[in-house]
Parts: sequence; structure tokens; C-alpha cells
Amino acid sequence: MGTTTATGVDADLSALFAPRGVVVVGASRTGTKLGSVMARSLQAFGGPLALVNARNPDPAVGLYPSVAAAADTLGEPLDLAVLCVPAGACADALKDAAAAGVRAALVCAGGFAEAGGDGVAYQERLVAASRASGVRLLGPNTSGFLIPHRRLTASFVPGVGDVPAGAVAVVAASGGVNHALAFLLADAGVGVSLAVGLGNATDVDAADVLEHLVGDDSTEAVALHVESVGDGPRLYAAVRRLTRTKPVVALVVGRNDVAEFAASHTGALATSWRTTRAVLRQAGAVLVDDERALVDAVATLSHSRLQPNPDPGVGIVTAQAGPGLILLDALRGAGVRTPTLTEDTQARIAGLLPPMTFQRNPVDTGRPGETFGDVLTAVAADAGVDVVAAYALAELGSTEQLAAAAAATATEGAPVVAGLGGSPTEAGELRHQLHAAAVASHLSPTALATGVAALVEDARLAHLAQQPDAEGAFDGRSVLVGRAWDEDQAKSVIEDLGLRAMPRRACDDEESAHRALDALGGPVAVKLLDAAVLHKTEIGGVQLGVRSHAELDDALTALRAAGASRYLVEAMAPSGVDLIVGAHRDAVFGPIVLLGLGGTQAEALADVTMRLVPVSTAEAAAMPDELLGAALLDGWRSGPRLDRGELARVVRALGTQLAADPGLQSLEINPLRLTHDGLIALDAVITAIEN
Amino acid sequence: MGTTTATGVDADLSALFAPRGVVVVGASRTGTKLGSVMARSLQAFGGPLALVNARNPDPAVGLYPSVAAAADTLGEPLDLAVLCVPAGACADALKDAAAAGVRAALVCAGGFAEAGGDGVAYQERLVAASRASGVRLLGPNTSGFLIPHRRLTASFVPGVGDVPAGAVAVVAASGGVNHALAFLLADAGVGVSLAVGLGNATDVDAADVLEHLVGDDSTEAVALHVESVGDGPRLYAAVRRLTRTKPVVALVVGRNDVAEFAASHTGALATSWRTTRAVLRQAGAVLVDDERALVDAVATLSHSRLQPNPDPGVGIVTAQAGPGLILLDALRGAGVRTPTLTEDTQARIAGLLPPMTFQRNPVDTGRPGETFGDVLTAVAADAGVDVVAAYALAELGSTEQLAAAAAATATEGAPVVAGLGGSPTEAGELRHQLHAAAVASHLSPTALATGVAALVEDARLAHLAQQPDAEGAFDGRSVLVGRAWDEDQAKSVIEDLGLRAMPRRACDDEESAHRALDALGGPVAVKLLDAAVLHKTEIGGVQLGVRSHAELDDALTALRAAGASRYLVEAMAPSGVDLIVGAHRDAVFGPIVLLGLGGTQAEALADVTMRLVPVSTAEAAAMPDELLGAALLDGWRSGPRLDRGELARVVRALGTQLAADPGLQSLEINPLRLTHDGLIALDAVITAIEN
Repeated sequence: MGTTTATGVDADLSALFAPRGVVVVGASRTGTKLGSVMARSLQAFGGPLALVNARNPDPAVGLYPSVAAAADTLGEPLDLAVLCVPAGACADALKDAAAAGVRAALVCAGGFAEAGGDGVAYQERLVAASRASGVRLLGPNTSGFLIPHRRLTASFVPGVGDVPAGAVAVVAASGGVNHALAFLLADAGVGVSLAVGLGNATDVDAADVLEHLVGDDSTEAVALHVESVGDGPRLYAAVRRLTRTKPVVALVVGRNDVAEFAASHTGALATSWRTTRAVLRQAGAVLVDDERALVDAVATLSHSRLQPNPDPGVGIVTAQAGPGLILLDALRGAGVRTPTLTEDTQARIAGLLPPMTFQRNPVDTGRPGETFGDVLTAVAADAGVDVVAAYALAELGSTEQLAAAAAATATEGAPVVAGLGGSPTEAGELRHQLHAAAVASHLSPTALATGVAALVEDARLAHLAQQPDAEGAFDGRSVLVGRAWDEDQAKSVIEDLGLRAMPRRACDDEESAHRALDALGGPVAVKLLDAAVLHKTEIGGVQLGVRSHAELDDALTALRAAGASRYLVEAMAPSGVDLIVGAHRDAVFGPIVLLGLGGTQAEALADVTMRLVPVSTAEAAAMPDELLGAALLDGWRSGPRLDRGELARVVRALGTQLAADPGLQSLEINPLRLTHDGLIALDAVITAIEN
Repeated sequence: MGTTTATGVDADLSALFAPRGVVVVGASRTGTKLGSVMARSLQAFGGPLALVNARNPDPAVGLYPSVAAAADTLGEPLDLAVLCVPAGACADALKDAAAAGVRAALVCAGGFAEAGGDGVAYQERLVAASRASGVRLLGPNTSGFLIPHRRLTASFVPGVGDVPAGAVAVVAASGGVNHALAFLLADAGVGVSLAVGLGNATDVDAADVLEHLVGDDSTEAVALHVESVGDGPRLYAAVRRLTRTKPVVALVVGRNDVAEFAASHTGALATSWRTTRAVLRQAGAVLVDDERALVDAVATLSHSRLQPNPDPGVGIVTAQAGPGLILLDALRGAGVRTPTLTEDTQARIAGLLPPMTFQRNPVDTGRPGETFGDVLTAVAADAGVDVVAAYALAELGSTEQLAAAAAATATEGAPVVAGLGGSPTEAGELRHQLHAAAVASHLSPTALATGVAALVEDARLAHLAQQPDAEGAFDGRSVLVGRAWDEDQAKSVIEDLGLRAMPRRACDDEESAHRALDALGGPVAVKLLDAAVLHKTEIGGVQLGVRSHAELDDALTALRAAGASRYLVEAMAPSGVDLIVGAHRDAVFGPIVLLGLGGTQAEALADVTMRLVPVSTAEAAAMPDELLGAALLDGWRSGPRLDRGELARVVRALGTQLAADPGLQSLEINPLRLTHDGLIALDAVITAIEN
């Protein structure tokens, strides 16, 4: 099955996720150990299932002495081996299975690299056996996977076999989180198409599974849980490819310092949370902050996906004002647009509702009446509405009306996402009906808002990904390899990239500094000029506002005291808002561009946004709006207004140069000042990769 | 029943929430209208229930022509009347009921002030009838209340009668939110003691219900939902009093701009979200961001409350690393401390778990074994652990072990809060068992973290409320009434309050400005001095760094151009971090003190914190740590370090002065500079209340 790459490893995962037959190695018929629990879980599998126990074979009860013996007896291909033997015995068990025709293996046991000691060697041997044999390996140190529509439960967690088949695929770093998510999705009435925990991810990793899901017809939306990233660019490419056809919602763990505990978990070093989030979003994934939001978002996206749209409009219909207010507050907080309904729609609604109700958007139906469904249909048909968030608390039949209307509008107008308040039993029954009608539903206003915000974000990201680049990619030069740049040289480099700096003179002595003052006119900044000094300000290496020759003498004296032997004399820049832009080589993801607000406050808040290189003009132009202090860039207190296109050119130029020049570690402009005359680089630092 | 105030209104709410008998006015035996739905809901009530229908009385089926007739026939006191008549008829119905001995009324109907038009007059008449008769009035425009342990369901929402009796009271601004919360609490397996929606809150408001709950033995924790506040100080006092004995969790709606829709809802103006949150927290309420967090937090607090503690330590025990990592990340994000376990505890755990597992805190039991319970007990007994967050995904009996151990430790050691992953049915059953053993439980790591963080926050706030004031309250002076202060005068006022400013001279002409420069030495700041000009910088009214008489002449010329005829010459302050402190009179809450970071970035982020006056030294000293940019105040990049006590004195002085002087609208110091020499006021503005 599947195609085979040059290394002999199956490039696809059909042997793992669509095996023709399954064998459990280390199985027993009784007991509570892994091998017996796993054998019981797999009994439901529709295809051939063989159990192997080398120590106590008993062919009478279907316990074979080896995989080869099982395969011979059954006469059926056994694609997947579930290895339930001790860590130290896994490598040999995998080799034996491979020899008997097995093409994929699952190892749940822990005690490998994550445990240290002997485990490191056990893992190395297991991985070597996988590579040598071409057998795809899931794990070790995971609790397996489940594919309900194939009745394939390769997991030792009880009850997980009851998780219903659905359209959501779960790809989790951790086996425990995989199962926790599968149960939460079951509780949400959604079910899963595939739910897999990657554990130590020695062979099959998140990118592999995401690539597999591109062609998996049973999957409509993907929940991705990330703890650390091995190959950043490959993960980016896999998410980017998948999001073209299926929405991906990502939860990245590690906002706070959890590195020590994380390392004990899978043996991997924690990847930067911030960078990983930025890259996944750039690849088109909707980001969420916790596992409940992950379920809310992916459940919604599994039922409907909006067309790519720079800023979809959301219509709100609520049967009760109080929950509607929570819903509106949450949607506004998520940056979602709730446009005033058109006059036509308002006129239609005015004919359906008593005059006391709010009808512009949100539409509050007051005490729900028989017109609830018609109101919903009217809002869904509004020209400015791309999706409707509808909430009803069970009173006077409101939830039933909502469910009926939402199901009816599922085929025309904007899609409806429903929120239902009421007794758990009744609400659950209505959710079931809505699910059957392909309408997503939630049990609280906040969950509803999370789901709708995910639809909106997905549509925005899809729109962004479609934007053609206004200009061709800038050609980076590789002439910079392996040297050190002082501020004057660094500014020459960025000027070559098309960026602006203030007029300046590099001066080898005091006399030339005085000539520079005459040439530039005052006031000037006078700085210590030395490629070896990166933090001039801290050591008194920057003197500002120098107007006269007398002041210049004082400044030069101060700079000499700070160790200067050369000087940069530069015209003072106009006032404005300081930014930081830079490009650097990330250990996991490679070239990354960064934008932040300058100043100590922004630094204390780590108010930055990032993108993987290459970054399109549209993507770069969208970066400033992610900053907490974005308001400062749009004419705050009569200040300057940022030209997004100009900023995008700066960001792209830095990123392209870094990507083109393998000798560069980073280029940073700090500050890049936003002035009424545009962007001006006040300082620039270029660093080379250390050899 | 109850005590009666001078106005004739019952001061307590026992007639409303513990009525000896109930009468439904406008009832019918059949149909879907409010009066019939309400009559059916109330059938379960244990005490006497009378139905009144003036139009179609039918004593044969128990439909009386009037409340008086019903009371006479039944011979029992009817304390509570549920009025199901049109808005315009409610006032008369209330008067009739009062005449027949009714002491409390519920009006669910809308169409009052929130609807405008005739509704305004209907509401005025209804309120007047309530006041005149002394009948306590709940509503109008609400969906009522429920008290399961009395089988009292004064609500027309179907299914709500099945919400189980429990220990959580819900006090919601909105009837819809009240019911939504009651259903969510039922779904969480917790139940309610009382759940009430206030609607237009014309008489019975949140403060009344909170006061009632102080003496309600069936309530262990309170969920408070706030949309707007009428009498701020009264709400503050009620929450402060209640939190002494029972935890309160508060959800304030309106973080974002929802004012227009909110006004249509209850007719009330939106109160400042930020101020309301700050005041409720100061009163001891735990703040949450959405209704699910409200349920997680209040459910946890209904089972256990920690002793007052400045910073409780949380122990984490998890059966699976992945969910444990989400839990740890969420707890760290909530600012919760997870101390390393003592050596004794670690030694105990080392004897219980295989060496590969993480054992310092979090404790990861790896694949759960029979020792899970002993591990939990060991962590709960650790000297540094005040509460244990324990998570297990259902595998190999882990959830059962967790439940048994948590229930066992409920009587000794730190309390345990449980998180259970697994099939909804199984997890639900275990939750039920834990609930019976008084152990709070959650179905996801994030919900568990929210619950534990609420316990921690409640204990911190209780500790803060207990701190005695280190110093006596400052005596404000009321000599300032009704005038205007220029910067020099304002600084004299704050110097009288014990605050520091730089040496300065107020100058009536240029000559005295030159003398001031000589006296103070350079560099100085020279400013336009005019009580009528509040924003000097924007109009060029501030000249900094003036060192020589020539520079002073330039500066004075510029100031004259900006309109100055008097000048303030002041020594330049040392560099540092700028803060804003102030006190102002809030329309809802009265005197409020405010602290924020200075500078445009902090302003763009609205990075401020507030307290109601009077504020204790301990409370004021805790304010800086709530700022997003708090790191800047503790020696960021070798900068100055804030003395919390010094700041508290400044904050208290401003607040006390404002409270003591009814003529003052505000005192603001902006910036208050944090320097290596302490806090220095760089500018001060005092405004009087406009007459």
C-alpha cells in the first residue's frame, strides 16, 4: 500500500490509519496489562485482527507465537502492528513484524528518550529498526489513536471506543490530550474522523498526519495540539497546504514557563510559543487559547466554512437580551465586525417584531414568538451578513424555533451557528438535531462567540493567503557573508535595501566630526562608532541634540570616556513613534521577521508580532494591527500615520536579505521611527553567524 | 415576617424568597400564556398556592376572582404575588395584592422603562405602588427566580424546575443569564440554592439579594452577574460584607462597547466596566471573564474555601503529562504559585513512583498505578501546598483512584480539586461521587485551572481585606472648595499632602524667571502658568532643559507665543519611569483612586488600576502589581525600584483629600516620576466640581 520514498519509508500513512489487518504483539486474552487492554480495544475492528504472544502462545484461543505465524495462518495482510512489549524489546519486535510484512507500527509504552537512562538507547534502536525496515512508527510514549468510522481503536483508554464517528480530526502532541479532546468532542456531539496522539514523534509527526489529512475524505476540520516543533518549515508547509482545503485550529501550549516539566514529557526542548503561534497563523491556522476553545472552534468549522473574506460581517439574533449582551461583548472582544443591518432587512424585521425590541444588530426578539424563524432568515439574507450567531434560552419554544430555522436556512443565506441555553437533556437533544442538519451549536454564549470568531478568522486568513504580491520578491545579495558591520556600514546596507536613514558622516577623528557638524548643520546626534559595541546607549555612547562646536567638544569628550575612537555624526530625526523591525534566523523555523513597538514599555510587554520568511506584502502589511499598541500607529494624538505598504517593504526587504545570505544571523533596525515624513532607521545592527 | 424600615418596606427578602404562600395573579389553568405557564411551574411548591383570574374566575377549579378572595378561602397567608397581567395593569394588581396581605411581588412582563413610551409611566406607577404599600418588588422585565430546596420555581422557563438544589446562589442582572447559569450549574452537577434574575431592578437589586444571602444557610458561594450599577457604594458594601463569610465570583459584562444594545435591555446606562470590576474585586469578589469561568469558579468555591493567605501554594498531580502541561500553563498564566515540594514530600513520592517521572511539582505519575492515591495524599500533606489540582484521564483506573483519594483527603491535608477526562457518562458518574464527598471536579484541564485559580484569588483577597492599616487615615482638608488651581498652587496642595515636587518658582514676568534660573541653577523646565490651561504640552507651553539665560529668553519667547503671561520655572527632575496617579469622583461609585503607567503607549493600552476610597495601605500597595507593565517598576534595566509603601501613601493622600473635600472633582499627578530618589510629582492638576 502507499508510495515508497527513496529511503524505503512509506510516504503515506495508509498502513497506519487504514490497515488491511492489525496484529497486537505482546497480547494476552486476560488481565489488565497494556497488551490485553489493547487487544480488547481492537476487537471491534472490522478487518482481520491477530494476537501474538511469544511466551505463552495458544493458537486454540488465537494467540500466535509470532507475527509471521499469525500472517501465515490467517492468510491476510497485517499492515499494522501494535507493539505491547517492554521498551527494550520494541526494536526487535518491530524487525520481526517487518519481516512478516507489517508496514506500520504503534508503540505506546513509555521509558524511551523522555525517561533518559537506558531509554535513550532503546529509542535509538527502535527508530533505526523503523528506518531500516521502512515501517512507519507512531510513538513511542503515546496512548495511540482511534478512527471510529473504521471501528479502529488502537488505544488503551477505556470508553474511547464509544467516541462517535465525526468530521473532526485531532492531531495532538500528547496521547493524553488526544484522548481528552476526543472525549470533549464526543461531549459536544461532534465526534472524530481520526484522533491521534504523537508521543515522542520519532517518525510519524504532526506534519505527516496533516499531509495525510489532505486526502482524507472523512475529515472536514482539524484540531492541532502543539507542544514543541522539530522541523518548523515542514510543519508550516503542511499546515499551509492543508488549510487551502480544510480549516485547522491550533492550540500551542507553553505561553508561560513550563519548559522544565515539558522536557520531562517528550524529551523535546520547548519551541518558542510566540514564534510557533505566529508561524501557524501565517500558515492559515486559527489560534485558540485553551482546549475548550479548541473544541468550540473546530466543531463550528467542521460544519461550515466561510468563503475567503477580508472581514466577514456577523449578524446576531438573540431571544434574550442578557445572554445576547454577553455574546456581543465576546464577539467585539474577538475583533469581529457586527454591521448595522441594511434598511431593507430592518424594515422586514420591523414587520416581525414588536417595536420595543433592538433591531439593528444585534436583533433581540424580546420574548420569543412564532416569528423567530422568520427573523433569523431575514438576518441571514442581509447583504452585509456572512454568518449569523443565534442564541436562545429555552423558553416559550424559542430553542425549538431556533433549531428549526437554523436547519432551514442551512441551504440558503448566511450559515447560522446556534447557541442553546436550557436543561442539559433538552439542549442535548436539539444539538443532536442541529448536528444532523449540519448546523453547529453551543451551550453558552461564550462558546458560541468562540465558534463564530473562528469562522471569521479562518475566512480572513484564507483571504490573506490568496493575495497576490503587488511587487516581485526583492533579490537579496549574498555579498555580506561573514563580517562585522558598524552602524554606518549597517545603515549603508539597509539603504541599499531601499530603506531611509538620516544624513550622516563616519568620522575617524574629532576634526572630521566638526566638519560633519558644519556639513549637516545642527542639531546632530554623535555616536561611538565601533562594530564590536552593540549597546551604545547603555555605556554613554550616544550624545543627542548637539548644536554648536562647543557642545560637540563636550560630546566627543564624553564619547572618548566611553571608549570611542571613531564617531558617527548624524542629523537628528524628527519626533515620532518608535518601532523595532528585524529579521533573524530561528533555530526551529529558520528566517523570521519581527515587528514590535519600541520603547521600554513595549519591551516589558513583549508587544511583538512575527512571520516566517518569505512573507507576502499583504501579510507584512497586516502585522502592525496585531500589536497591542496599534492605536499609536494611526495618528494617535495628531501623531504620524503608518503607511502599511511602506512598512511591508521594509519588513520584506529585511526578510529577503536574511534568507538570501546564509552568513547572516540577524538584521535589526531599532528604532525605526515613524514620522510625518515616513519611516526612518535611527539605528541598525547586523550580526553574522558565528563560525 | 421580617423587619420593617421607616419607609414601610421590608428590609429583608423573606416574603419574596421564603413565602408562606404564593398567589399567581392573571393565572389560568390552560394555555401557553405567561399566567398559565407560571401557574404550572409553581405547582411543585410545597406551601399554599392560589390562582387568581379576575375575568374568568372559576372557584370549582381553584381560580379565584381576587387575591383577597383567595386568601379568605384558603385561610393562609399569601406572602408572594406573581403578577401575570399586562404592564399597564401591574400597579393596580400590586395594590390589590397588598391590601390582601401580600408582602412581595414578582413582575416578569416587559414593556416598562426598557421599552420607552408608555412603559416609562407604567414603571413609575408600579414602583410608586410598591413604595406606598411596602411590598418588595422583583422586576419588572425578568424571568423570575428559583429555589429548588423549597421547590419554589417562580419562572416560566421550562425545565428549570429540574435544576437540582445545591449550594450556589446566582444573582444575575438579566433573567436570561440567570437561567442560562442555572442550567450550566446543573450540567456541572452543582445545583443552586437560589437563582434570581433582577430585570429592571426597580426595587430589589443585587445589593438587596447579597445582603439576604449573608444569612442564607443554604448558600455556600455566590455567582454575581453585573450589567450596570445604580448605587455603587451600596453594592460595594454588600459584596464586602458577604465575602467575609461566603465567596463571591463576579462576571461584569461590557468590556467592549455594547452600550447602545445594553441601554435597550434594562433602560440603565452602562457603568464603566473597568471601574465596576476594580470595585468588586476590592470588595473581595473573584473576577472572571465569561460565564463558563463563572461556573468553574463558583462551583469550586462552593465546595472549599482556603484560609486567608497572601499567596497560596498549589500542588499539581497529574496522571498524564500532556493535560498536566496545559494545567500548569493555565495556572502560571493566572499568576498562581506552584512551589517545589519539600524534600520530605519528594522522598515520599520517590518511594511511590518510578524514577523516570517528574516529581517536584507538578507530580506526573506516568501511567497511573495503584499508588496514585498515596501520591495525592503526600502532595496534599506538603507543608507548602495549600490546595491540590489533580487531573486524570480515564485509563487503567486512574480516574477512580483520583476520586477515591480526593474524597479520602477531603478531611485532612490541603483540599483537592479534581479534573477528570473520559467518556461523558463515566466522568459524570465520578463527578457525582465527588460532589457527594464535597470535592469539586471539572471535565477539562482549563476548567480545573480556573477553579483552582479562583480559590487562590479568593484567599488572597481575604488576606488583603484583613490587613490593618499601618498608619491612621490622613485627614483631608476641606479648605480647597470651589476654586481654580494653577500648576504652582496644585503642587503646593500636594506638597501639603506630603508628596514631593521639584524646587520651583512662580514668576509673574521675564525678569523674575531669569532670577529663578539663577536661584535654581540649570537645567530647568519653564512652563506656561495658567489655571485655565490644562494641556500645556500640546500647545507648546512646556520648554525643557533650559540651561542659560540665552536659552531662557528663547523659551520665554516660545511660551509667550503659546499665550503665557506667567511662568513656572522648575528644576529638571532626574530620569525615571513615569506614572499617573489620581483621584476623581465617579458618577456611580463616588471617590476613586487611579494608578497607571505614564506615556502614550500605556495610555493607548489603558494600563490602569483603580480602587474605591477609602483604600487601605495594603490595598494601595498591591495596585502596581496589576499593571501590565509592572516589570518596569522593579528595576527594569537598572532603573529605579518602586517602594510600594511610598506609593500607597501618595495614593491614599489623594483619595482621602478628595473624599474630605466635597468641592473637588479630581486631583491628578501626571506624571509622577519614579526615580532612584523616590517619587516626584512633575505636574499636578486639581479640578473643582462645576456648579
